[in-house]
Amino acid sequence: MKTENSLQKTLKIKRFMIESGRPIVFLNEKTAEAMQISAGDRVVVVFEAHKRMIAMVDLMNQVSPSEIVLSKEFSAFINGSVKRVTVYPASYPKSLPLIVKKMHGKELDKLELRTIIEDITQNALMEAEVAYFVSAVYEEGMTFKETVNLTDAISSTGARLSWGKRDIADKHSIGGIAGNRTTPIVVSICAAAGMTMPKTSSRAITSAAGTADVMETLTKVDLTSSDLQKVVKKTGACLAWGGSLGLAPADDKLIRVERLLNIDPEAQLIASILAKKISAGSKHILIDIPYGFGAKVTESQAKGLGKRFVDIGRRFGLNIKIMTTDGSQPIGNGIGPNLEMRDVLSVLRRHNPPLDLEKKAILLASTLLEMTGTAQKGNGLVMAKSILDSGAAYKKFDEIITAQGKKHNSLKTGRFEYHLTAKSPGTIKSIDNKKVNHAANLLGCPEEKSAGLYLYKHKNEKFSIGDRIVTFYAESQSKLEEAKDFWKGSRPIEITH
Amino acid sequence: MKTENSLQKTLKIKRFMIESGRPIVFLNEKTAEAMQISAGDRVVVVFEAHKRMIAMVDLMNQVSPSEIVLSKEFSAFINGSVKRVTVYPASYPKSLPLIVKKMHGKELDKLELRTIIEDITQNALMEAEVAYFVSAVYEEGMTFKETVNLTDAISSTGARLSWGKRDIADKHSIGGIAGNRTTPIVVSICAAAGMTMPKTSSRAITSAAGTADVMETLTKVDLTSSDLQKVVKKTGACLAWGGSLGLAPADDKLIRVERLLNIDPEAQLIASILAKKISAGSKHILIDIPYGFGAKVTESQAKGLGKRFVDIGRRFGLNIKIMTTDGSQPIGNGIGPNLEMRDVLSVLRRHNPPLDLEKKAILLASTLLEMTGTAQKGNGLVMAKSILDSGAAYKKFDEIITAQGKKHNSLKTGRFEYHLTAKSPGTIKSIDNKKVNHAANLLGCPEEKSAGLYLYKHKNEKFSIGDRIVTFYAESQSKLEEAKDFWKGSRPIEITH
Repeated sequence: MKTENSLQKTLKIKRFMIESGRPIVFLNEKTAEAMQISAGDRVVVVFEAHKRMIAMVDLMNQVSPSEIVLSKEFSAFINGSVKRVTVYPASYPKSLPLIVKKMHGKELDKLELRTIIEDITQNALMEAEVAYFVSAVYEEGMTFKETVNLTDAISSTGARLSWGKRDIADKHSIGGIAGNRTTPIVVSICAAAGMTMPKTSSRAITSAAGTADVMETLTKVDLTSSDLQKVVKKTGACLAWGGSLGLAPADDKLIRVERLLNIDPEAQLIASILAKKISAGSKHILIDIPYGFGAKVTESQAKGLGKRFVDIGRRFGLNIKIMTTDGSQPIGNGIGPNLEMRDVLSVLRRHNPPLDLEKKAILLASTLLEMTGTAQKGNGLVMAKSILDSGAAYKKFDEIITAQGKKHNSLKTGRFEYHLTAKSPGTIKSIDNKKVNHAANLLGCPEEKSAGLYLYKHKNEKFSIGDRIVTFYAESQSKLEEAKDFWKGSRPIEITH
Repeated sequence: MKTENSLQKTLKIKRFMIESGRPIVFLNEKTAEAMQISAGDRVVVVFEAHKRMIAMVDLMNQVSPSEIVLSKEFSAFINGSVKRVTVYPASYPKSLPLIVKKMHGKELDKLELRTIIEDITQNALMEAEVAYFVSAVYEEGMTFKETVNLTDAISSTGARLSWGKRDIADKHSIGGIAGNRTTPIVVSICAAAGMTMPKTSSRAITSAAGTADVMETLTKVDLTSSDLQKVVKKTGACLAWGGSLGLAPADDKLIRVERLLNIDPEAQLIASILAKKISAGSKHILIDIPYGFGAKVTESQAKGLGKRFVDIGRRFGLNIKIMTTDGSQPIGNGIGPNLEMRDVLSVLRRHNPPLDLEKKAILLASTLLEMTGTAQKGNGLVMAKSILDSGAAYKKFDEIITAQGKKHNSLKTGRFEYHLTAKSPGTIKSIDNKKVNHAANLLGCPEEKSAGLYLYKHKNEKFSIGDRIVTFYAESQSKLEEAKDFWKGSRPIEITH
């Protein structure tokens, strides 16, 4: 509606340090008036030749009419030597009528989905508009074709890793299970067997810890693409954080809006996972879908979801295998970054490992070994076990964390602890993943690496009077008390006498 | 999750003038860290004894750890003498799981809707979360009971006007029709007949002009509640802007989010209109629902919507009457604030009035006269016409604008003009409201009062070679050109030869 030329201004960057969580520019009221815009409107910010970014406008008297303040979110994109930027009012986003179309239950085609994802990537949509899109996908669902096109759009708008001729393998869990830190073990076994596994993981948002939080206890995880490629070239694998690689920038924004309500439309879940794998250059992908009480999906949902992963992956030439696993209780004993790393090390070092964690990791690794032809069909389990028992997996793990930037850390537990002991004999009937994760959050996870809880017993295990059931660890007495109060009120562990 | 006491801070207000479109506080990074919050999180800001407001957090180095900057949006609530405020992290909004419940198609009860509307009023929800709610209502609809409870919740959370024993009448149009400036005429006729009509109107968002924009050409429209009551006491009516009265603050926020996609879920449309009428103390309400090509609804939708207005209004003791009217083309000749006021004055002064506008205004006024018992059944039309013809309506109009604060204004048209003339004889087949409104926006409406367009012909009217069809008015040549380009490309007027 408003033409670029008549309303554009070239302004001097004033260095203020403002962090807003989203790109914001601060303009003088007079500048905004001349540009015919108000607080909350969007402008295009042009820096250097063809680089541009869309941002919301705040008005500020402390900026002169010839100046502009850019929020910290620009700093990753704008070179420090840039002194001036040109701004003009952003045009009406083309994707808005397409979002309305989806809300009306109509199918979006390839170009339309591409338009929406590009607008999200370029920050042309406000979070409220992204929420409308997420909600439309959640309420109306997506056809097979739409999900394929959404995956394509998300993977096409970000960076890509390339690995030459090597076949890249990956594993992924849809999450939701406390503990469940199989990834470092699986990657170490597979890489020790000669496979190439550039594994990137997420940080926890609502759970006690993500694989990236756990790896961070012992190594640097925020690698650049080129550091990551060096590590993989040297060791055959990595165990890094995926957030700093820009593989699927639209997805990060979608996830942020989904997290507000903790909703995760299936089509977006599939597109999000597969787009990241495609951008990371993966070929063979094993997806772990835990199901059951307290997990994200039921057994039948797990089967349906698995089938869609396989079918859609096939359209992108991916070899996907699904493993539906028991997700009705936590895996391993430790919940929280340091405690989970202790479990991982106990498996790798063959010293008192939690058997559920070890068994699941071996099963996943053996499947990957067979999927990639590294082991012959039927020989995966034996190969995985022998790599673990021989110490080759532990050696590989140490190589990887050394290449990434090893930290020396005694993996201590929180200064304040509390032991919950049995007052009468009984049996563990159930352990609720969601409540256990929430208790760990209250104890300080994932920010405080030493916080968390230790489960001594799993489902169907018996205990006697005085046996420890669980120990809480925190860095402050008040957090310990909050978690104890929550535990008392919500009973994450049910027992029978 | 986080307790109030351990994380609360009392901070000194630093006076920066920042306008953000929503309440924002700026904190030093260290303060935020001590409070365990990040940019984009929400805090409760406590000022004076029990007053509080929720705001988003931005981080800024230019604020010291003992200081806080409050955005301009606080200034209407915080007394200038307040030196310090206390802030603490806001708790998880109770309404989020309720929004998910609605997304799953479940009915919300009275308390649940109240919780959502209170959270919106207190700014506890981000715009993306409000968008999820709007979208859920749009996709899932609302039951009769829900719509009643939503109306009740919205009207209960704002200010209320009270009028003692007087019966208050009101008219409302659901909008969408270019021109259509009946309100000033209807209110003048009814008030001249002795009715009490404290009419508040909105400003245009996507159309060429709202009644408040048009009235503003000749009088002050942003009245305080007490000014408004004085005007009504003196003249029996007012023609003011409703936005400054705080009658339904949740509704203003809902509308802002709805406008992003230009969606208007029916339940929210009904609740929004009725809640404002209830808060304004109205008893008799005439609702104009224009239907047809280019209008907001079809004829059958108009009938269904009208029935729901009546049924829901009855639950609040309102006497509602519906008038479904032809909305397939603009009403009157002028489109734009000054041009529409010229039309209104020509009707009131009985000098070359656009007959469609005059006829519709008389019909609406006569219905109101009968609804309120001011005219006997069947006598409304005669009474309305005689009040108009006698000059009593014009006299009342002048009394009202004088009481509000009359402006002397020649109602000039834009400096740049362009006449579209017929190149061959023909007949007007259709005129598209939406496209006409958009052309008026391009010409500078509603910000520029003198901009807009003048329609010489309506549907089914014939024209000869050289006849003027439409004239454009703008304050700049570039706006004139933009509107001409749009007109050429989109053909708002269809003709037959």
